[in-house]
Amino acid sequence: MASPASTPMIRPGGTLGIVGGGQLGRMIALAAADYGLKVHIYAPDADSPAFDVAHAHTLAPYDDAAALAAFADACDVVTYEFENIPHATAAVLAEHAILRPSATALLTTQDRLSEKDFVASLGIPTAPYRAVDSAEDLVRALDALGRPAVLKTRRFGYDGKGQRMIREGDDAAALLAEFKGVPCILEGFVPFEREISVVAARGPDGAFAAYDPCANEHRDHILAFTRVPAPGLTRATGDAAVAIARAIAEALDYVGVFAVEMFEIAGPEGAARLVVNEIAPRVHNSGHWTSEGALTSQFAQTVRAVCGWPLGDTGRTGGMAVEMENLIGAQADAWAELLAEPGAHLHLYGKAESRPGRKMGHVTRLKPLG
Amino acid sequence: MASPASTPMIRPGGTLGIVGGGQLGRMIALAAADYGLKVHIYAPDADSPAFDVAHAHTLAPYDDAAALAAFADACDVVTYEFENIPHATAAVLAEHAILRPSATALLTTQDRLSEKDFVASLGIPTAPYRAVDSAEDLVRALDALGRPAVLKTRRFGYDGKGQRMIREGDDAAALLAEFKGVPCILEGFVPFEREISVVAARGPDGAFAAYDPCANEHRDHILAFTRVPAPGLTRATGDAAVAIARAIAEALDYVGVFAVEMFEIAGPEGAARLVVNEIAPRVHNSGHWTSEGALTSQFAQTVRAVCGWPLGDTGRTGGMAVEMENLIGAQADAWAELLAEPGAHLHLYGKAESRPGRKMGHVTRLKPLG
Repeated sequence: MASPASTPMIRPGGTLGIVGGGQLGRMIALAAADYGLKVHIYAPDADSPAFDVAHAHTLAPYDDAAALAAFADACDVVTYEFENIPHATAAVLAEHAILRPSATALLTTQDRLSEKDFVASLGIPTAPYRAVDSAEDLVRALDALGRPAVLKTRRFGYDGKGQRMIREGDDAAALLAEFKGVPCILEGFVPFEREISVVAARGPDGAFAAYDPCANEHRDHILAFTRVPAPGLTRATGDAAVAIARAIAEALDYVGVFAVEMFEIAGPEGAARLVVNEIAPRVHNSGHWTSEGALTSQFAQTVRAVCGWPLGDTGRTGGMAVEMENLIGAQADAWAELLAEPGAHLHLYGKAESRPGRKMGHVTRLKPLG
Repeated sequence: MASPASTPMIRPGGTLGIVGGGQLGRMIALAAADYGLKVHIYAPDADSPAFDVAHAHTLAPYDDAAALAAFADACDVVTYEFENIPHATAAVLAEHAILRPSATALLTTQDRLSEKDFVASLGIPTAPYRAVDSAEDLVRALDALGRPAVLKTRRFGYDGKGQRMIREGDDAAALLAEFKGVPCILEGFVPFEREISVVAARGPDGAFAAYDPCANEHRDHILAFTRVPAPGLTRATGDAAVAIARAIAEALDYVGVFAVEMFEIAGPEGAARLVVNEIAPRVHNSGHWTSEGALTSQFAQTVRAVCGWPLGDTGRTGGMAVEMENLIGAQADAWAELLAEPGAHLHLYGKAESRPGRKMGHVTRLKPLG
């Protein structure tokens, strides 16, 4: 654990750098501003939503070492809103600024194979998996894991992109060929009861604070609803999920907010089993409910953690039940109805263009515990 | 009342203009961003805190007609964070954009004399007052109202600036001379029990929504604490206060958020009497508690009102009691302790320089109803 002397607090008035200009960066920027920080966004897209709410931005590609160095030099601490940051990029950032979470956390979690190797090394269950670098690898992996199984690219996947289910009778080699030779992983299919996630934070002093585990419901491979408390999740299983998240954070000496997605598998005689699906080294869509539903939002918590400030209270607002609904593509066209809905809290991301499958906003609803 | 056809809703993705770059503009900008709006700030100071969170800003004096016109042309609707906007400025803005609240609301409330004349014309009590444009006026006014009385400049006063108490034995003419000939008003001293304020909103369709009346405690003429529910305020007096605020808003055909400060004066046999002290045609410091303490913050409510959207729920979060404490000058140096205080919500305004008497931030605390 780092000593207090090595982890100075960033002062209000200082500058928080955020790599990535999407809605997650935007919401972190809003939280940082509310704490009196300046925000500097680094992103390669001119119409990045986060640019609109930042003191400064750098519009440059992720492999522009000079721009990265100048950006990091201008920041007191740098964080990121997505994990697909090239290692060389992270190395430049870490050389010129405090990078939180660390480059190690990025490296470990941006590749499905190294992520699963890491989780397995902690004695925490994952779905069974095999590396797949060739058609021969895939044949062997399918022999070992059976069908159905899920073929995924090791990197750059999100919202179901970069993955294919391989069922009985499917031409596995043809599915693999769609990924054009990029390194893949085959994961055994897990017949889960529910998908939950734990969003939590760890500070540079080792302080840890988790939000209540939430249940996630996907449609078309995109998160549609998050519900807290997770319906049907027992206290014991929820506690076990948080313990898994904490073990992962400690093993990575993690600093910041992160999410661990897990599958809950029904066991014999009601005993449930958890397997880790994915780690996100950043704020997570399944934590959006915290903006109204928790005493500290995951965005404010990110700022607290990476600045070396005390972590905020992760309790639920008034002990209420919370539902977060994503607004995908044209769903956001209902903004006027959502503004008029009693008790609904609307968030829109300011994206210039609505496209099918694109996350345009979300809405949070708080209800008395049922 | 304007017809629906004449009050189109501003769409997310549209641009909200805000005149003024201080913390109020900054907090409105943050709320607007959360609704997917772009924000354009107009202010004459290069280090305006609101610039840091806005899509665009115009750095120009308030009498630069060309800059004002270009700014308003770039906005779908324009609002403001302070009332001391010259009439010519408001006229240019209203010519080039929808200005909400209106120039009439500005004109009426930015001058203590016209404000009091307006309130009195509605049959709503104010402190007794007289216009003072000369030493002779002041003699007559003191004869009529007695001592103590409060001499105030008609315009540009805030946080106790531009006002002097005239007590027995004071050299009234000398006190008047300090104001160097600007138009003044003398107000009879009101021996009030408590100062309360009503923060409320009215939409272009006439919809009205008030927050619970709050009690304000000042130190050195600057708001120090706001408490909701207002301790000791009866339901009947609170309802009367809201009715006064509503009557004022309707008489002005007001669109936006506003605050009405009132004094509660104890009457015979427990009957309380309210007199209006001041109207602020904008979000107000005594409404800062709404960010965590109400279901819709006064900043979000401003955006809803001026965009022609449905007003949000003004109920208190979980029915809790709320206390807002201003952080004045060096008080904000305690930010690290406040971040560590359980249940405290810290807001800092990102001001470059801390000065005695300058509002640097505030903290909100929610507690179970006592």
